[in-house]
Amino acid sequence: MTANGGPFWDKTLRLIRDIWPLGERDELRDRVQKDLPESDLDKIRRAIDACLEGKGGEVSARSRAAELGRAYLVLNREGRKRFLELLAREYSVDNVAVERAIEERSTISTAFELQEANHKLQNLLTAPRRKLLGQFNELPDGVKFLVDMRAELLPLVKKDSELKPFDRDMHRLLASWFDIGFLDLQRITWDTPAVILERLIKYEAVHAISSWEDMKNRLREDRRCYGFFHPSMPDEPLIFVEVALVNGLADNVQELLDVNAPPGDPDKADTAIFYSISNCQKGLAGVSFGNFLIKRVVADLSTKLPNLKTFSTLSPIPGLMSWLEKNSAELDSREQQVLKKLQNGDGAVEYLQEMFVDDPESKEKEGDRVECKNVMLSLCAKYLLKTKRGSQAYDRVAHFHLSNGAMIERINWGGNLSRTGIVQSASIMVNYLYKLGQIEKNHELYTGKGEVNSSSAVRKLLKG
Amino acid sequence: MTANGGPFWDKTLRLIRDIWPLGERDELRDRVQKDLPESDLDKIRRAIDACLEGKGGEVSARSRAAELGRAYLVLNREGRKRFLELLAREYSVDNVAVERAIEERSTISTAFELQEANHKLQNLLTAPRRKLLGQFNELPDGVKFLVDMRAELLPLVKKDSELKPFDRDMHRLLASWFDIGFLDLQRITWDTPAVILERLIKYEAVHAISSWEDMKNRLREDRRCYGFFHPSMPDEPLIFVEVALVNGLADNVQELLDVNAPPGDPDKADTAIFYSISNCQKGLAGVSFGNFLIKRVVADLSTKLPNLKTFSTLSPIPGLMSWLEKNSAELDSREQQVLKKLQNGDGAVEYLQEMFVDDPESKEKEGDRVECKNVMLSLCAKYLLKTKRGSQAYDRVAHFHLSNGAMIERINWGGNLSRTGIVQSASIMVNYLYKLGQIEKNHELYTGKGEVNSSSAVRKLLKG
Amino acid sequence: MTANGGPFWDKTLRLIRDIWPLGERDELRDRVQKDLPESDLDKIRRAIDACLEGKGGEVSARSRAAELGRAYLVLNREGRKRFLELLAREYSVDNVAVERAIEERSTISTAFELQEANHKLQNLLTAPRRKLLGQFNELPDGVKFLVDMRAELLPLVKKDSELKPFDRDMHRLLASWFDIGFLDLQRITWDTPAVILERLIKYEAVHAISSWEDMKNRLREDRRCYGFFHPSMPDEPLIFVEVALVNGLADNVQELLDVNAPPGDPDKADTAIFYSISNCQKGLAGVSFGNFLIKRVVADLSTKLPNLKTFSTLSPIPGLMSWLEKNSAELDSREQQVLKKLQNGDGAVEYLQEMFVDDPESKEKEGDRVECKNVMLSLCAKYLLKTKRGSQAYDRVAHFHLSNGAMIERINWGGNLSRTGIVQSASIMVNYLYKLGQIEKNHELYTGKGEVNSSSAVRKLLKG
Amino acid sequence: MTANGGPFWDKTLRLIRDIWPLGERDELRDRVQKDLPESDLDKIRRAIDACLEGKGGEVSARSRAAELGRAYLVLNREGRKRFLELLAREYSVDNVAVERAIEERSTISTAFELQEANHKLQNLLTAPRRKLLGQFNELPDGVKFLVDMRAELLPLVKKDSELKPFDRDMHRLLASWFDIGFLDLQRITWDTPAVILERLIKYEAVHAISSWEDMKNRLREDRRCYGFFHPSMPDEPLIFVEVALVNGLADNVQELLDVNAPPGDPDKADTAIFYSISNCQKGLAGVSFGNFLIKRVVADLSTKLPNLKTFSTLSPIPGLMSWLEKNSAELDSREQQVLKKLQNGDGAVEYLQEMFVDDPESKEKEGDRVECKNVMLSLCAKYLLKTKRGSQAYDRVAHFHLSNGAMIERINWGGNLSRTGIVQSASIMVNYLYKLGQIEKNHELYTGKGEVNSSSAVRKLLKG
Repeated sequence: MTANGGPFWDKTLRLIRDIWPLGERDELRDRVQKDLPESDLDKIRRAIDACLEGKGGEVSARSRAAELGRAYLVLNREGRKRFLELLAREYSVDNVAVERAIEERSTISTAFELQEANHKLQNLLTAPRRKLLGQFNELPDGVKFLVDMRAELLPLVKKDSELKPFDRDMHRLLASWFDIGFLDLQRITWDTPAVILERLIKYEAVHAISSWEDMKNRLREDRRCYGFFHPSMPDEPLIFVEVALVNGLADNVQELLDVNAPPGDPDKADTAIFYSISNCQKGLAGVSFGNFLIKRVVADLSTKLPNLKTFSTLSPIPGLMSWLEKNSAELDSREQQVLKKLQNGDGAVEYLQEMFVDDPESKEKEGDRVECKNVMLSLCAKYLLKTKRGSQAYDRVAHFHLSNGAMIERINWGGNLSRTGIVQSASIMVNYLYKLGQIEKNHELYTGKGEVNSSSAVRKLLKG
Repeated sequence: MTANGGPFWDKTLRLIRDIWPLGERDELRDRVQKDLPESDLDKIRRAIDACLEGKGGEVSARSRAAELGRAYLVLNREGRKRFLELLAREYSVDNVAVERAIEERSTISTAFELQEANHKLQNLLTAPRRKLLGQFNELPDGVKFLVDMRAELLPLVKKDSELKPFDRDMHRLLASWFDIGFLDLQRITWDTPAVILERLIKYEAVHAISSWEDMKNRLREDRRCYGFFHPSMPDEPLIFVEVALVNGLADNVQELLDVNAPPGDPDKADTAIFYSISNCQKGLAGVSFGNFLIKRVVADLSTKLPNLKTFSTLSPIPGLMSWLEKNSAELDSREQQVLKKLQNGDGAVEYLQEMFVDDPESKEKEGDRVECKNVMLSLCAKYLLKTKRGSQAYDRVAHFHLSNGAMIERINWGGNLSRTGIVQSASIMVNYLYKLGQIEKNHELYTGKGEVNSSSAVRKLLKG
Repeated sequence: MTANGGPFWDKTLRLIRDIWPLGERDELRDRVQKDLPESDLDKIRRAIDACLEGKGGEVSARSRAAELGRAYLVLNREGRKRFLELLAREYSVDNVAVERAIEERSTISTAFELQEANHKLQNLLTAPRRKLLGQFNELPDGVKFLVDMRAELLPLVKKDSELKPFDRDMHRLLASWFDIGFLDLQRITWDTPAVILERLIKYEAVHAISSWEDMKNRLREDRRCYGFFHPSMPDEPLIFVEVALVNGLADNVQELLDVNAPPGDPDKADTAIFYSISNCQKGLAGVSFGNFLIKRVVADLSTKLPNLKTFSTLSPIPGLMSWLEKNSAELDSREQQVLKKLQNGDGAVEYLQEMFVDDPESKEKEGDRVECKNVMLSLCAKYLLKTKRGSQAYDRVAHFHLSNGAMIERINWGGNLSRTGIVQSASIMVNYLYKLGQIEKNHELYTGKGEVNSSSAVRKLLKG
Repeated sequence: MTANGGPFWDKTLRLIRDIWPLGERDELRDRVQKDLPESDLDKIRRAIDACLEGKGGEVSARSRAAELGRAYLVLNREGRKRFLELLAREYSVDNVAVERAIEERSTISTAFELQEANHKLQNLLTAPRRKLLGQFNELPDGVKFLVDMRAELLPLVKKDSELKPFDRDMHRLLASWFDIGFLDLQRITWDTPAVILERLIKYEAVHAISSWEDMKNRLREDRRCYGFFHPSMPDEPLIFVEVALVNGLADNVQELLDVNAPPGDPDKADTAIFYSISNCQKGLAGVSFGNFLIKRVVADLSTKLPNLKTFSTLSPIPGLMSWLEKNSAELDSREQQVLKKLQNGDGAVEYLQEMFVDDPESKEKEGDRVECKNVMLSLCAKYLLKTKRGSQAYDRVAHFHLSNGAMIERINWGGNLSRTGIVQSASIMVNYLYKLGQIEKNHELYTGKGEVNSSSAVRKLLKG
């Protein structure tokens, strides 16, 4: 969120100020200090009030909202906090009015009066600031402005529950604006504008993109990358997914990301591996796109590449090791022994990476290796299938795919040998399979009864 | 609103049905009769319930909403009415739950509990059908679907106030989706797709477009046409305005629409005449764009054509004659005499059109003509400046421009000699002037105190 | 070809004149009279010379060419004729220099010298005006300018063979610029800009488009329309074809053009009927696109609509009746009798149209009708298969399709009951079939040996 | 030039082969060996002949040309050389036919016959291979194919003058296709597709782009980058220029390329510095775009940023040091002394870079430094203004800008402290000024009389 919004905004604002003079000579942002001290709060208050009253008509009100937004952007962290708190505290629901309306409602007899009273009550339960949030939308980049404002609000809400209703207003507005029906599914290729690719590099949250060459490699002919975009933020991905077109279920990420591997023929691939999904906008927390993204991409791929028969993920298990550590007391001694070796930071990384290198030494460690693998795969199966948070899978990635209707198809030892992969899940990765025709049933079983569908191979692991 | 939504929709739906089978073998639309008899209502009910419960996950729910929408489209008038009434009656606010929540709220002591209770109450006051309306958005043309559905609901609401809350839900949703910040202002030219021009021809509500040649003439180099479009309905104008670039204030529409007049040089014009504004979507009644449209066009024109100094309308006065007729008792005898001549249908049209033809006969009628003109201009001034509906101007076009901050600059005798112009307003048209720098002040005076700003020439007419 | 080239051109020229002043204060077009009298010719000469010398550098030379082009556009018919004749006579090949080069060449001994001498000779054989023609290309709309200039040159060439070399220069240049590889094949739909559809209406040469409704009907879902466009003239179709997607070979154009016929399902059609092909640019005479257009459209359709099995035309036979009239002496008496009835203008039209109306009277005329049909179909078969101009089919439409590799599949009585259809070919139309896999062979037979491939049904008609 | 041309080409070819079977079962590329041995040459010959004869019609001929092109792409270096030599030797002008035509021409008497004879002769002087080159154009990427083929031909021509006429054919064709009027001037920004930016990084020939961050920095708000593109090669820049918007004439490239420098306000800049121009396509050698590019960019910038008053380059002097070394005998002893210090490779680089660092030591070397600077600036002025190659400036960059109409405005000591800058020109850079209104005059003086316009400051340096 930059401090100005670009030269276009400047010019538009200047023009509007010329045509519809907004009263003050200088713009609001030039009249407040960056940390918004008490003495400046009243200027903000007056500007907000003018927006809400619609002084000078709706066009002027929106121009004033632009000024206000612009003022927000020049504030520093402290100033923004004070701005947000002002909106949260002084522009919330008027409880006195609500109670009066409730009282009136209680005296009503006809059905018609009741529906009018409900309408009035609903309006009163909508905080006045809601209107201002909407007015920001006319700004160039107004949608992005609001998304970024919420990203700044969210950490404050965690500390101060009084801000929660304000966040709910924001969430409700953004959820409506970012309805899935408004989003464009776009394929991302090496022909995509650099500004977007730069953002993918920044936002990738699963397997970091190390360079532009790495980025290019993930867009080569046997890879696919899709993102959702909002028409008002055409350069900003909301979420994106990376897919590898391969033959057979991929069992490790090293091969998928290898920049030296020769590309395959996408027309001959039988399997699409979804190996990375990343959300991009913190300010859209709680507005979910992932489920739609996967299914739209499946639909698009199966139309364009009729040879594809299998749609599966190759997913991390972010909570495995931390959960085992927390619950190590419940493990048997054999399990504890294995766990110990995989816990000591750099040592564990070295220990595991070594296992997968073909050198003479590794022979003698064979027993060790097999033991480690067997124990961990079994623990992982228990973790994924049996460990719950209420009725949901404990692991957040597992919960995401299972509630989307996927099943657990395979658990892969050595699936991710990067430091992160080893620290998070002792190198294990999992394939969640989206089996067309079974997705609804899986979803219903999981969300209804908490049952997790899995392959027999995975179920066998449960028995250790 | 066609009965199918195009081949693309078909294919997508078929694909989704293949990948995520929705239970029933046949699509809903093939299982209901066109007039939706009692016996079929339950099928609709079950489908709605499945959407609202999110059975099979949100992607499936939206696919079901698509089926439901598709079923709606094959219904006839009676069937659609029954469908809408079902939504209005059975999926509205649960008053019992509301009252329970109100009771709970009354026992609350802490501020935190209060905000939670408000949140809960607000949710309960949102009718369940609201969710379904949103789910239609994923359909191809889902936004247009909803706009058209509301266009079909509105006449029903007029007859049955019980449907009003349903209409409010729709209005609220559409107002959020069609927020001005999401709309594209597009210039319309002879390079615009024919499908859009065809719609302008159909939607033009002020001066009918008689042919494609007439359409082309309104897009020639000294004319401008702009419309607002929504990204989800790129081929459907929401509102459009037609502008003539001329020298001096235009005083009649005959010249502006003359297909034989040679075009002027837009770079040399000093005045932009907004001579027609038409709303296009009945289903967006109550969602206003006109004010924004005029001001954005003013901003765009003044940037691109710096010679333009005056921005004015040449507007009809749709209510003048009918108001005079209703209130003829209050007119003096001279006025009544004039009015009589202008009231007798075809005769009046002939009588007035003749006045503006240069023929020998007209000389002798000069006195008659002057009398007629003076009386009518004076009556018109009174009508526009003094006749109110509450604090608003009685004439709806006058109210629109005055509340936008325009002033009444000039009243033009013979401004529109078409049959419509004569029947509505005895050929008189009015220039509403948008004087940059005064717009806010005019708006405040009008909306605050009901005062109408006008030129001294117009005020002089008041005195007759 | 308008007289100015649009406001953009104006501004660019003005800018270039400001930055690189071209010498004279006023622009050339303001210094010459419209009919370009002798006294003005020298101004043109000097401007041409400056362009050819490249005075002030190539950028300036092109700016001067723009001035010159602009001057051409303000000239009237006589003035343009004189301008073109000037280029034809004074800027042609320098024969003295050519002969000198030929002499030098004759003294050469080494292979290297010979190739240099050839190069020099080739350059000398290129008329100096060729360079100027190329320089017009930098103009906005420069390509269209040249196309239109040639359209104006062509009628002059017919009268004056001295202009022929000039026309050859133009043809060579345009043939290179309009190489098929540079053209875009575009599908034309109701979403196409109105400016292009307006041109289709104007350029349609086979079955006149009577209105915008007729135009829209030809773009409905079971119709296809494709055109070739050049990137420098994006609003100007070069050639376009109209296709009907039907079941079975269409045998008359009345049904195809019926605006009241309900559209069929394009996905279920098995036959594509090419029922109209029109060239649009007179200035591109001799640069042929039709062959490529048909085959590209066949390729595109067969990819997108795999159900299509048959690709055929429904074509006029423009030369049939005029040829029969010219050669009536060679007909037998039965044929002459039939011909007579079909020759007397309006009477013939009425006579034939009546035949196809189902009314009681027609019964008694049955014999007459059958006779007429049999005779004419037989004569038509002879005309199409046996009548030659050298080794080519006499009928120009027949020659076009046969040299493209089509065969004559069917001859249809009553194929076109419009006045034109009856006057040209006594209502008969013909299906030229493009049979995939046989096209090359047909082409070779026809162009090599003058043999025409036809169906057995058509061959049977030969025997009468 | 990749070995296949992309999947789209594949599919099109396959389709064409299906629809118009080309005779052989296997494609030509599968029937020849990579080095095209003698035994395979005949297959190529037959394919070329079929293309030239137009066997099966023009559409088939072009399909065959596609096959041939595809075969060329699978050849290795040796094979391609043999392919090109085949075209050069066996498909050139038929001298016997030329001489026969010359003889016929000599017997001619009428003007009409003479023009026909010239026409015939011109056709005979066009080598048959010219037709084949044109046929490649229908290929997807056919234009790029030909450009790349010429890039491979050029090094062969240098060694074998017999290939020169072939190269002339290619040059003529490409010069016609790449006429400036067909090119798009595009602004390149961070919103440009990555595939194009990657190519800029690769093609930049003046100041190497070290990373994507460096690339991004050259596209920031106070920089401009423009390129010419051909519509048939939309992802391939032909030439591009980088411009810095600054205040006052920039005198060194270090500041311009500093990624840490804060960007300035482009609207306030008064000077546009063209600091890098790079040609991108070797195969377009001899087709010049640079002159047009600079002037179009000047026109575009002066329209969009009216504050810009000065348009200048900051240019390298690539030939300075090598020329001084070659001609050191003619220098006086003082000059030789200075030159010596600047000649010894790494030592010289260190020596000069040190001069520009502010450290205590440098004080004592002040005399040394001043001496070095004065001598070199004077030598440089002599080199740029007085050293000629015929009537042209000896330095190729100087010749380019002077023939475009620029003047030498300033010579900058320390203008480029990179290794390349020091080795080429002892850190000196020069500003060529494009003074609007004087460009034509400068061009005429320079190209006509060899006179170089320069500022008085530069002329003063001449005197040492």
